[in-house]
Amino acid sequence: MAEHSVTVESTLEALLAEKKYSTIRDILITMNPSDIASIFDELEEDHLPLLFRLLPKEQAAETFVEMDPEAQELLIRGFSDSELKEVIDELYVDDAVDIVEEMPANVVRRILSQADPEMRKNINEILRYPENSAGSIMTTEYVSLRPSMTVEESILRIRRTGVDKETIYTCYVTKDRTLIGLVTVKDLLLAQDDEMSIEEIMETNIISVNTQADQEEVAQMFSKYNFLALPVVDAENRMVGIITFDDAMDVMEDEVTEDMEIMGGMTPSDKTYLRSTVFDLFRHRIPWLMLLMVSATFTGLIITGFENKLTTLHLAAFIPMLMDTGGNSGSQSSVTIIRALSLGEVDFSDLLRIIWKEIRTAVLCGITLAVVCFAKIMLVDHLLLNNDSVTTLVALVVCITMALTVLVAKLIGCSLPMLAKKIGFDPAVMASPFITTIVDALSLLVYFGIASAMLSTPV
Amino acid sequence: MAEHSVTVESTLEALLAEKKYSTIRDILITMNPSDIASIFDELEEDHLPLLFRLLPKEQAAETFVEMDPEAQELLIRGFSDSELKEVIDELYVDDAVDIVEEMPANVVRRILSQADPEMRKNINEILRYPENSAGSIMTTEYVSLRPSMTVEESILRIRRTGVDKETIYTCYVTKDRTLIGLVTVKDLLLAQDDEMSIEEIMETNIISVNTQADQEEVAQMFSKYNFLALPVVDAENRMVGIITFDDAMDVMEDEVTEDMEIMGGMTPSDKTYLRSTVFDLFRHRIPWLMLLMVSATFTGLIITGFENKLTTLHLAAFIPMLMDTGGNSGSQSSVTIIRALSLGEVDFSDLLRIIWKEIRTAVLCGITLAVVCFAKIMLVDHLLLNNDSVTTLVALVVCITMALTVLVAKLIGCSLPMLAKKIGFDPAVMASPFITTIVDALSLLVYFGIASAMLSTPV
Repeated sequence: MAEHSVTVESTLEALLAEKKYSTIRDILITMNPSDIASIFDELEEDHLPLLFRLLPKEQAAETFVEMDPEAQELLIRGFSDSELKEVIDELYVDDAVDIVEEMPANVVRRILSQADPEMRKNINEILRYPENSAGSIMTTEYVSLRPSMTVEESILRIRRTGVDKETIYTCYVTKDRTLIGLVTVKDLLLAQDDEMSIEEIMETNIISVNTQADQEEVAQMFSKYNFLALPVVDAENRMVGIITFDDAMDVMEDEVTEDMEIMGGMTPSDKTYLRSTVFDLFRHRIPWLMLLMVSATFTGLIITGFENKLTTLHLAAFIPMLMDTGGNSGSQSSVTIIRALSLGEVDFSDLLRIIWKEIRTAVLCGITLAVVCFAKIMLVDHLLLNNDSVTTLVALVVCITMALTVLVAKLIGCSLPMLAKKIGFDPAVMASPFITTIVDALSLLVYFGIASAMLSTPV
Repeated sequence: MAEHSVTVESTLEALLAEKKYSTIRDILITMNPSDIASIFDELEEDHLPLLFRLLPKEQAAETFVEMDPEAQELLIRGFSDSELKEVIDELYVDDAVDIVEEMPANVVRRILSQADPEMRKNINEILRYPENSAGSIMTTEYVSLRPSMTVEESILRIRRTGVDKETIYTCYVTKDRTLIGLVTVKDLLLAQDDEMSIEEIMETNIISVNTQADQEEVAQMFSKYNFLALPVVDAENRMVGIITFDDAMDVMEDEVTEDMEIMGGMTPSDKTYLRSTVFDLFRHRIPWLMLLMVSATFTGLIITGFENKLTTLHLAAFIPMLMDTGGNSGSQSSVTIIRALSLGEVDFSDLLRIIWKEIRTAVLCGITLAVVCFAKIMLVDHLLLNNDSVTTLVALVVCITMALTVLVAKLIGCSLPMLAKKIGFDPAVMASPFITTIVDALSLLVYFGIASAMLSTPV
């Protein structure tokens, strides 16, 4: 897709150079606003206002919503008041809020001053909700019906008011502002009799979400229930807005990116990779690197403590293999559990069941690895490389350490994310980098412990 | 949510013991099919057929779709032919295909023999498409309109045929089976004049996907364009089916889980964690552990080669810190790039830009870490622990190695996933475990190289 944009982009640059504006317009109006936005984001900033003005009003607003905040700000600063008002009038409230949240204060003041009073009120209301809450991602533009309306009246109401609603396909039935039912356009169209009342056909077992709920919970509900839209209610069950599936998809994607960043040992970032500056990347990466580097002091101390044994018994060569295998075993378990937790497949009550499963898996993996490792050491190090210091006993020490390290790594890998979740931390923190550091220290202790017990220092 | 199910579950078990079936029914009919399915999946198998028969026909089918394959198979084996037929008649084609794909051959034969001829034909058609292709996840139940129809005729057609369609909200306009436009129910309801023809109001810039396209591409299109449904066409642009947003969400989730599994050094699995047997887990984890363990032979060889220096210069204590910091730096870059690739934010044409960004970030991180590391070594190892072998020169060697390792790690971490994608591999393979193994070997080479150059072996 990106490659496709590059081609269209260069065509547009060429047409711009030749000032063939009507041809550009003809090309743009056949395109989807998302595609236009990705092209605009790549173009030189100077061309942006000109190209944007070539778009028809509605397509312009839809494109605007999909653009990068930098490009949006640039355009807004170039807009006349009436141009700005035209774009804002076409926006849905939730999209307007998304834009406002990214802009500096003086731009926000200009946007609010051009928005009509109803829009301004709605934007301010949504801005009041905590970041990443259901309230902060909802829109207030939904179709509401009264229980006493007939099917025919409802369809008329949708026809009259639907144009400004983010979705018309699910309509919400309220009584004194309390949500009491929902009815879909499918229900309305397929109703046997146009004179039936909404009360008769509405679904009353409604799943809704509170304004304060976390957006991750919202995304989980969408993937579980396959909703087109989810009603948002306040503490008194009064209907205040809806969240549509496309916003839930965005949340899902953002949450996964955040999880992956944390699991990779970075603090999460709002910006895409190409939009991040070098200093942004540095700032998000250095804390974990620093923390993990400093905590590696312990592994250093352990090695220093056993340095004599290490030297005389030639044990150093196996340290990387033991540490890496431990790290990998642990991260397999932690990644699996972190993902299962974030999909809601497991929770804390499954802890013992998970530990028991991981123990058995670790035993299988540990024994297999130990056997292969033993064969490898005897064949490669002992026979092939003729390394005299690698005796059968040394091979045995390495392999027993291997099996025990796998067991310890898998136990830590599966239980730390569960415990983190239990005490209210993000389980994703307990991923590879963190687990590796702990497992490294433990595997060295096991290694030197077993070596001390089984091998006597040669005279 | 899981905690909520546990409570309902125990209530149901208690009511079952008292044979209070009508109470159970009253509870179940207020619930969403997804919730009923999660409860059924947790219950004892013996109760399942009895409970399932308490559900009204439509709710039963919807619940059936959401259940685990094991539970589905159990139920089907217990169904009479007419019960099976009743459930199948209520299913959408794509859900029926999902079920058929998980069942053993004899159960599949029974399902197909009870399906009506139209359904059987559709199921067989979808089963022909390659696994994970757009064709394999589509459904053939969509509303098609002719360009000459009026708005009124179209609404009538939807009312007549809509009940069996997976979505009625986007309707597809075809001419000789070729897709020429689309029209939404919103367009139809909000049309100014019921006598307008579909041709006049339809959208003709249609984004569609080929039957052979990968499902990951489908998911990316949904998240980019916010579609409710995406039309699927064959090589001749003939309309063959649609994919709806809820199926795209499932694909999105599955693809993320798969990415995470691969990034954690596991072969991807279809089963959820709790449904996987210990042997399943073993089978998916052992290949990478084995491969990475064997490739750690190289790090072992490097250490053995430098063992003299290592011993006399007391360099071993810093190996874990250098290896871990290298591994962490590399995985930060690889995780970032793998995610950006799978979101379509970057592609191969950005390679040089990415490398340049990573170099600068690596220099910042490397220098910061080196300075802190130097201070730490001089303070802790030299002053505090009074370790005479740790001279200023040794500290310098360690810190220079640190900075260079971070640079090498970030370069490898960002470029390998890009190269993997370019040659058609899954970039996720190039994550932490793989990068760590390569970076370990390189960081040791750098370490010993610099140590050889800067430190003379003490006499």
